[in-house]
Amino acid sequence: MHQNFNLIIEILGTISFAMSGAFAAMQKRFDPFGVLIISFVTAVGGGTVRDLLLDVPVFWMRDMVMCSVIFITCIVAMVFKSLESRFRVTLFLFDSFGLGLFTIVGIQKGMNADLHPIICITLGTITGCFGGIIRDILLNRIPLIFRKEIYATASIVGGTIFLLLVYHTRLSYTFVQISTILLIVLIRTLAVKYHWQMPKFYGVDNNSEA
Amino acid sequence: MHQNFNLIIEILGTISFAMSGAFAAMQKRFDPFGVLIISFVTAVGGGTVRDLLLDVPVFWMRDMVMCSVIFITCIVAMVFKSLESRFRVTLFLFDSFGLGLFTIVGIQKGMNADLHPIICITLGTITGCFGGIIRDILLNRIPLIFRKEIYATASIVGGTIFLLLVYHTRLSYTFVQISTILLIVLIRTLAVKYHWQMPKFYGVDNNSEA
Amino acid sequence: MHQNFNLIIEILGTISFAMSGAFAAMQKRFDPFGVLIISFVTAVGGGTVRDLLLDVPVFWMRDMVMCSVIFITCIVAMVFKSLESRFRVTLFLFDSFGLGLFTIVGIQKGMNADLHPIICITLGTITGCFGGIIRDILLNRIPLIFRKEIYATASIVGGTIFLLLVYHTRLSYTFVQISTILLIVLIRTLAVKYHWQMPKFYGVDNNSEA
Repeated sequence: MHQNFNLIIEILGTISFAMSGAFAAMQKRFDPFGVLIISFVTAVGGGTVRDLLLDVPVFWMRDMVMCSVIFITCIVAMVFKSLESRFRVTLFLFDSFGLGLFTIVGIQKGMNADLHPIICITLGTITGCFGGIIRDILLNRIPLIFRKEIYATASIVGGTIFLLLVYHTRLSYTFVQISTILLIVLIRTLAVKYHWQMPKFYGVDNNSEA
Repeated sequence: MHQNFNLIIEILGTISFAMSGAFAAMQKRFDPFGVLIISFVTAVGGGTVRDLLLDVPVFWMRDMVMCSVIFITCIVAMVFKSLESRFRVTLFLFDSFGLGLFTIVGIQKGMNADLHPIICITLGTITGCFGGIIRDILLNRIPLIFRKEIYATASIVGGTIFLLLVYHTRLSYTFVQISTILLIVLIRTLAVKYHWQMPKFYGVDNNSEA
Repeated sequence: MHQNFNLIIEILGTISFAMSGAFAAMQKRFDPFGVLIISFVTAVGGGTVRDLLLDVPVFWMRDMVMCSVIFITCIVAMVFKSLESRFRVTLFLFDSFGLGLFTIVGIQKGMNADLHPIICITLGTITGCFGGIIRDILLNRIPLIFRKEIYATASIVGGTIFLLLVYHTRLSYTFVQISTILLIVLIRTLAVKYHWQMPKFYGVDNNSEA
């Protein structure tokens, strides 16, 4: 049962990030193959880096489930696009759900490999954030993760609470999964809505060489 | 025989991309070591990502053939450069041949690992396109693959035709290899010459956050 | 004894690059989690790529030493920051020491895997340079390595001298390690102080498409 539910979470995360990548590429006026490539890279980027780090088979290579999901999502995004053009909110929601879903997937894969909880949270953050970072680098934008709103913070906080609830409470595993995913989406949404920001460093930026 | 011919294709692809990287770096006025590094990364980037995904030994690490080829190509490019400065056409031709040659190499490695044809085409596209993407990111340019002309499309179309010919005809394997490589170069060349483009999406780009 | 000394070198290199990443991120006015992420990626980036290429376990995943070192370094950098704002020199020094220390670590890991000396030097350069390249790509700067001063050159020259001294002299191994690391830092420092540059290629840059 767990196994099936984990697959569902992984598929939902893949759909979310594939949508997010496809919309971002359409917004940049790419052609259909460009949209497909950006969508693919956004959806599998984080999980691929995680699987390479863990030295386990890369999750999208041995069966066609993930590739099919991405392909269908891309077609849906292209069709949906011609009906709907409020990209900003759509992109934001898919990106937030992808972050929540993939953070939990990444932490679980780290737990399966018996890694230290801190390393598990790191893997969760990598799984959740890297797809979006690669997408933004390819689209030549400043990665969303480093723009002003709380992003990686939501992933780190959600991941920590997930591990605390799993190890220190008797709550149902599935309940903990769902509520942590929603918590991450909620933190992200409230952060953007109410312009929450972490305190920043004020450096001597006029000395910047960039 | 197949084995030898495959090695020849891999070496020719490496020469093409090493040339392409070296010329791009000289155009940006890098010093000789910078030219060598960009040349190396362009030539091995796609194949390295492919081998990491397949979890097979990285192709340039166990013998000195590829490193020697890249080193000699770089020297030739630097000497050739002082005689010749029509970079644009030269760069384009080497890049197109590299794309064709490496697409077929990538697909073959996927077939050797008994992967699904769609995954094989994905690996071919990654092998053909990633070296150039990394080169362009390091040179701080918008990746060539996402500029207006057909690029990844040529790789995907050529790769699909390659697999169809291999599995559904009785044509000689070597003939299929050579003709698909030339087809990819031809699609790229015609696309640039006649400004072929895929239809694009026209989004609400004034809402762009980038 | 060698083993312990190698661990010390790896930890010192990690501290240097974690500092360099943290200062660069504070200079860009990131929030504390952003500083932590850039610091982490800068410190582990080069070694991670090296370990993936060698197909050995990634060095920071199996124990908590490196993660703890990076975390503490980050805290120190944030506190130290509020007392001190001469980023440019600090950043430069940490970056140079990281380059020297990680170059030697990378070469040693290649020697342990019985690779060809040229491949070992390549691995040393990758270990020394990739963390900084990833840091600069994430910060949206032209990678430091491709700006005007000698950088990869210092790593390649230092690495070559290290291998020559190890294989062709009877000097103590630890002495060779320390002196080559200091040599790399010295080359970098003198290069910046006296504006040493490699001769460059003067291309038809007005034809540049970028």
